[in-house]
Amino acid sequence: MARQLYELVGSDDRRFSPYCWRARMALAHKRLEAATVPVKFTDKEKIAFSGGKTVPVLVDGPNTVRDSWAIATYLEDTYPTTNSLFGGPEGRALARFVNHWTDLALQPALFQAIVGDIYDVVDADDKEYFRETREARLGRSIEEVRAARPEKVAALKGVLTPLRMLLAEFPFVSGAKPAYGDYIAFGAFQWARSVSPHPVLKGEDAILAWRERMLDLYGGLARSVPAFDDAA
Amino acid sequence: MARQLYELVGSDDRRFSPYCWRARMALAHKRLEAATVPVKFTDKEKIAFSGGKTVPVLVDGPNTVRDSWAIATYLEDTYPTTNSLFGGPEGRALARFVNHWTDLALQPALFQAIVGDIYDVVDADDKEYFRETREARLGRSIEEVRAARPEKVAALKGVLTPLRMLLAEFPFVSGAKPAYGDYIAFGAFQWARSVSPHPVLKGEDAILAWRERMLDLYGGLARSVPAFDDAA
Repeated sequence: MARQLYELVGSDDRRFSPYCWRARMALAHKRLEAATVPVKFTDKEKIAFSGGKTVPVLVDGPNTVRDSWAIATYLEDTYPTTNSLFGGPEGRALARFVNHWTDLALQPALFQAIVGDIYDVVDADDKEYFRETREARLGRSIEEVRAARPEKVAALKGVLTPLRMLLAEFPFVSGAKPAYGDYIAFGAFQWARSVSPHPVLKGEDAILAWRERMLDLYGGLARSVPAFDDAA
Repeated sequence: MARQLYELVGSDDRRFSPYCWRARMALAHKRLEAATVPVKFTDKEKIAFSGGKTVPVLVDGPNTVRDSWAIATYLEDTYPTTNSLFGGPEGRALARFVNHWTDLALQPALFQAIVGDIYDVVDADDKEYFRETREARLGRSIEEVRAARPEKVAALKGVLTPLRMLLAEFPFVSGAKPAYGDYIAFGAFQWARSVSPHPVLKGEDAILAWRERMLDLYGGLARSVPAFDDAA
């Protein structure tokens, strides 16, 4: 098979990158198979051919595409007749808004709640790299942020309210059926359950119920990987 | 004409409700004419027939619809062949996410920056009502929040980043053409320019450029009303 998805890996073959999960789910949505190639944070030379330093990277025959949004639009435009990821031009732009909100509001809030748990599961070779880069971003030690977890989870809850209200009305972010807007937001929660034994979603949460539906998709694709059973 | 839109009015016939602007723009998008009926905050009996206490209320022949989102979906479903407001089911659900984000993140941040200016332009009959209800919501006096305007504008800037990044890539929130996702977000900025002489958007801001495109739509519909020329 000529299709390969390069994705981040931690210890125990844990695939925890939220961006890589967006690509993995988009490929499954399009019914496109791809072999996954694990890449550690400190394995940058493995993806140097892509021209960038981050995963996901998709190699599709002669084409190399890096960046999760570029991969999604590439798949939609290259395979337009199979299951649309956006449902048209309006859906494409609006999904891009969900993408920016997830990157700039949801994931930073979630990162604060799970950073200590990520540190625990990154590959041994990556721990020093992870600590240096993330503590620079946090402006504090990983341990200090970890100790503040209860406040971080409470702050996350407020950030999630627009998503929670949406999912109380619609079964999926994209309406009656899942599409790329769902995979963007789902990547964040799959990231959390891949690294953290502590639930960030609890009880009768519409987001939790949706996450379970997402885990069931494509034969339980996202449920079948190393992760924590964190449903409270 | 049998179609009427009840909307909030301030002094000088100022129509400043962000929710009413969503409805006004949605009607224009569908090329549907409607007479507007001004309603003050303390004029609740005028809209009692709707079963609610808030505007917008749309009366369309035999049908009465209240709440801006209900009006948008009513218009889309009742007049499906003219200019779609959503571009399909994915676009409808994703626009609802923009709606919740606007209500829960954008508008509360904007409200903090402009609340003193809103107080200045509400109808004289409404000032006492406005002060009581808004100070209860703020937990502080209008004057105290107004004095903190610089910090409030700075906080707003961070909240707007996902929208700003989207509009740096697409001419409209909904892609190549405006649709309901645009009207939701635009309502907030039209609210601001209807009440405040102080710009909340400055310089080379992609949001400001988009707002100008929105003001040009439908023969300058939103530009032609009493408002401040707040472009910095």
